[in-house]
Amino acid sequence: MNQKFEQLKPYLENWAALQAALQLFGWDMETLAPEGAGKRTSLVFGVLSDRLREETLKPETKAIVRELLKDETLSDAERSIAKKIQKDIDDLELIPADEYRAFTELQSTATTIWAKAREEKNFDLFAPILEEILRYTRKFAGYKAKEGQALYDVLLEDFEKGFPMAVLDPFFDQLKETILPLLQKAKERADQIPDDFLFGHFDIDAQKEFNDYILDYLGFDRSRGVVAESAHPFTTNLHKDDVRITTHYYEELLTSAIFSSIHECGHALYEFDIADELSQTPAGGGASCGMHESQSRFFENMVGRSLSFWKPVYPKLQSLFPEQLKDVSCEKFVAAINKAVPSLVRTESDELTYCLHIMIRYELEKQLMDGSLAITDLPAAWDDLYEKYLGVRPANVAEGVLQDIHWSQGSIGYFPSYALGNAYGAQIAHRMAEDMDIDALLEQGNVSVITDWLHEHIHRFGAVYDARDLLMKVTGEDFNPKYYFEYLQRKFG
Amino acid sequence: MNQKFEQLKPYLENWAALQAALQLFGWDMETLAPEGAGKRTSLVFGVLSDRLREETLKPETKAIVRELLKDETLSDAERSIAKKIQKDIDDLELIPADEYRAFTELQSTATTIWAKAREEKNFDLFAPILEEILRYTRKFAGYKAKEGQALYDVLLEDFEKGFPMAVLDPFFDQLKETILPLLQKAKERADQIPDDFLFGHFDIDAQKEFNDYILDYLGFDRSRGVVAESAHPFTTNLHKDDVRITTHYYEELLTSAIFSSIHECGHALYEFDIADELSQTPAGGGASCGMHESQSRFFENMVGRSLSFWKPVYPKLQSLFPEQLKDVSCEKFVAAINKAVPSLVRTESDELTYCLHIMIRYELEKQLMDGSLAITDLPAAWDDLYEKYLGVRPANVAEGVLQDIHWSQGSIGYFPSYALGNAYGAQIAHRMAEDMDIDALLEQGNVSVITDWLHEHIHRFGAVYDARDLLMKVTGEDFNPKYYFEYLQRKFG
Repeated sequence: MNQKFEQLKPYLENWAALQAALQLFGWDMETLAPEGAGKRTSLVFGVLSDRLREETLKPETKAIVRELLKDETLSDAERSIAKKIQKDIDDLELIPADEYRAFTELQSTATTIWAKAREEKNFDLFAPILEEILRYTRKFAGYKAKEGQALYDVLLEDFEKGFPMAVLDPFFDQLKETILPLLQKAKERADQIPDDFLFGHFDIDAQKEFNDYILDYLGFDRSRGVVAESAHPFTTNLHKDDVRITTHYYEELLTSAIFSSIHECGHALYEFDIADELSQTPAGGGASCGMHESQSRFFENMVGRSLSFWKPVYPKLQSLFPEQLKDVSCEKFVAAINKAVPSLVRTESDELTYCLHIMIRYELEKQLMDGSLAITDLPAAWDDLYEKYLGVRPANVAEGVLQDIHWSQGSIGYFPSYALGNAYGAQIAHRMAEDMDIDALLEQGNVSVITDWLHEHIHRFGAVYDARDLLMKVTGEDFNPKYYFEYLQRKFG
Repeated sequence: MNQKFEQLKPYLENWAALQAALQLFGWDMETLAPEGAGKRTSLVFGVLSDRLREETLKPETKAIVRELLKDETLSDAERSIAKKIQKDIDDLELIPADEYRAFTELQSTATTIWAKAREEKNFDLFAPILEEILRYTRKFAGYKAKEGQALYDVLLEDFEKGFPMAVLDPFFDQLKETILPLLQKAKERADQIPDDFLFGHFDIDAQKEFNDYILDYLGFDRSRGVVAESAHPFTTNLHKDDVRITTHYYEELLTSAIFSSIHECGHALYEFDIADELSQTPAGGGASCGMHESQSRFFENMVGRSLSFWKPVYPKLQSLFPEQLKDVSCEKFVAAINKAVPSLVRTESDELTYCLHIMIRYELEKQLMDGSLAITDLPAAWDDLYEKYLGVRPANVAEGVLQDIHWSQGSIGYFPSYALGNAYGAQIAHRMAEDMDIDALLEQGNVSVITDWLHEHIHRFGAVYDARDLLMKVTGEDFNPKYYFEYLQRKFG
């Protein structure tokens, strides 16, 4: 290690500890903590965030980082860590301490209120807190905005560097142009694809057994990982040796938990595989939200909805649900899980329509941020866009505007990453296919060649490179969504 | 609130946050965290403890506390908080920072190693780490010892103020004199008390249902509480609105989980009931370990093993285990759960022999601390004392010296609190009986009158008074174990 970089060690230790504590409280609040704990625990959350802020803004930290950024001898990893701390310093210095703290406390209570509002199908419960979140988000974006920069672009760049509206608008336009005709065809075909066997009554214990099986099959490392349940499946980690995913079981749906587990496992494999020396540093996560989604969506869709993946594992599923699946061939099952039908809920939607769900959120966020849409009009605007693009209209806010946790967490500008993740994934898979026959490996049940390749080309680098740089490094090409459009054409055309 | 006391607020906020984080990591490590997380998470643990130390030793903190202790206008609660912080300052100033940190990191890995050693029935795995723990414990006690004070007395006073060996030796002698003849009689009677129906095969889901039922019955507040499972049942809390207990289910034992749940519920009721303004301060826990045990043991034994308690709840148990209990009357069941038989495992032992298990640990700790017993000789010394007092000899270290988690947590000097807790409980129950007919209330299923009394007389005070002062306040008398000896005579004579 560079000797100058060594001076960062005390800061990095504090950073890692406070970060892990915040992650653990976040995990705990969504999986286990009692409802009544909210208020007192949010104080704890606020203090810990505050301490992290304080450490980052200490004159020593700032001086060390400033010196490091002048040093030409740093490794890529060291430089990326220093740059990330510098970005934190810049961001934090723009936000007054009391506002920063109030916002972190707000975030920790907001998810609880969102969950309650969703359960009670009552948007009014959530509206005032969303108003607050938006107010802070706009204010903070305002502090950070460069001259003439739109507030929403500030958020977008934070989640996904290099993807402002100027890049995303044409991307979503092309997506729409690709998907809408394919969806028309898919709708016409839908009647001929039976999928009634995916709905009914599916014993939860048997579902759990299959989920455990499939996680082991994909290489989820139990000695460094935890699986639990929560309302909205997610992945978090304290460090690379403690990676946690959740799923949610529905008695009446066979595949919901399966695909959410495969999805979260994709995230988890990324975190497990990050280089030892990067873990517990600011470069110890994925390259970006979108790159993280590229991994989860690659496993969920390109791997998890392919015939070749299911061939070796389908008999296990059939044996757990003999009553429902005994007369369903693997081919028939795979056709059913790939059936594209317009639906209301993003996380339950098929691969083809998924990005339309994202596009709707993108459009709404743009309007919320530029002030052209009021919170009170949000539920109706949501419903209208669903009707426009998908031809379906939510019966209530739980399956409408309250379905996602993201806004309650203050994550505005995150959704586009999901769509970008699909596109990155297709671009990466195209490059991967030059090195191996993915389908043949899956048919052999040989997933590890694929995960090893991802480890080597993507995972181990953590956040040392941003998404566009990493794409360039791996595929020799800048971001290019054509691979994704071609993939959709091939699969649904 | 006193204006001067107000100055402590920033310290108390940091204290509460770091403390809650440490508690949550402790809980998580024993209930959920993956095995491989140990090393990196112990670094986190170390940093957080370090920060707590740093906050406590800040010149501002010391100056404020010093001033506060001179102030005559403080309330009892404020004074107790200031005194506790002063004690922390004194203790920490005696221990070098690097040693303190090394010890907290050691503690967090030691329980994992203990669990492994216990599982593999291999004392050699645990011996080196216990040696380390003892080395630090002796060293730290040495720093704190007043002239001529025995090291073990330093530890005892830390856990239970006012109970050095000079008080405990005669207490344990009297205990021995009381219990051994009663045990002799109990042994002679044992053959006439059938209890075969407590052993066999008991469906875990049915056990869980009864445990949930009994926790609700006792008033465990689900909106502020969590129930989980761990190898060794325990209670912890992040604050008064987040109190967590664990239990451990054994398929072959009917009552193990029941009594551990009732025991931990006794601890939990204490924590739930602490005054709002004390929670998240150093006076926001129980008065002492022993006072905490007085509550858990009171519920477990005086309440939980009484005929009057079982009369209203036994039909529920019978309905869950009809095959095993259909011909067992409530009276027969209660006789069985009160059967005194010498056994190997403390947590599974009956009420009469329980304190002999404690006495054995007390004798061994005394020898370990004064250096007259080497770690290598500990397993044999343990087995010999079991043979001497209880007439039984462990077949392996898992049911012998490795059965308790305490030493791996660095808790040496804690065990006597369990015995003291029994005695406090009897003294408190004697006073309580002046205000109500405990048996009649239990027969009516009216537990809340009892818990309300405890709230009013014990729980709400938190740690404002130490155990002896609180006993004086509640019962009008200093610690007096005669109530406990009389209780044992009455019950087992």
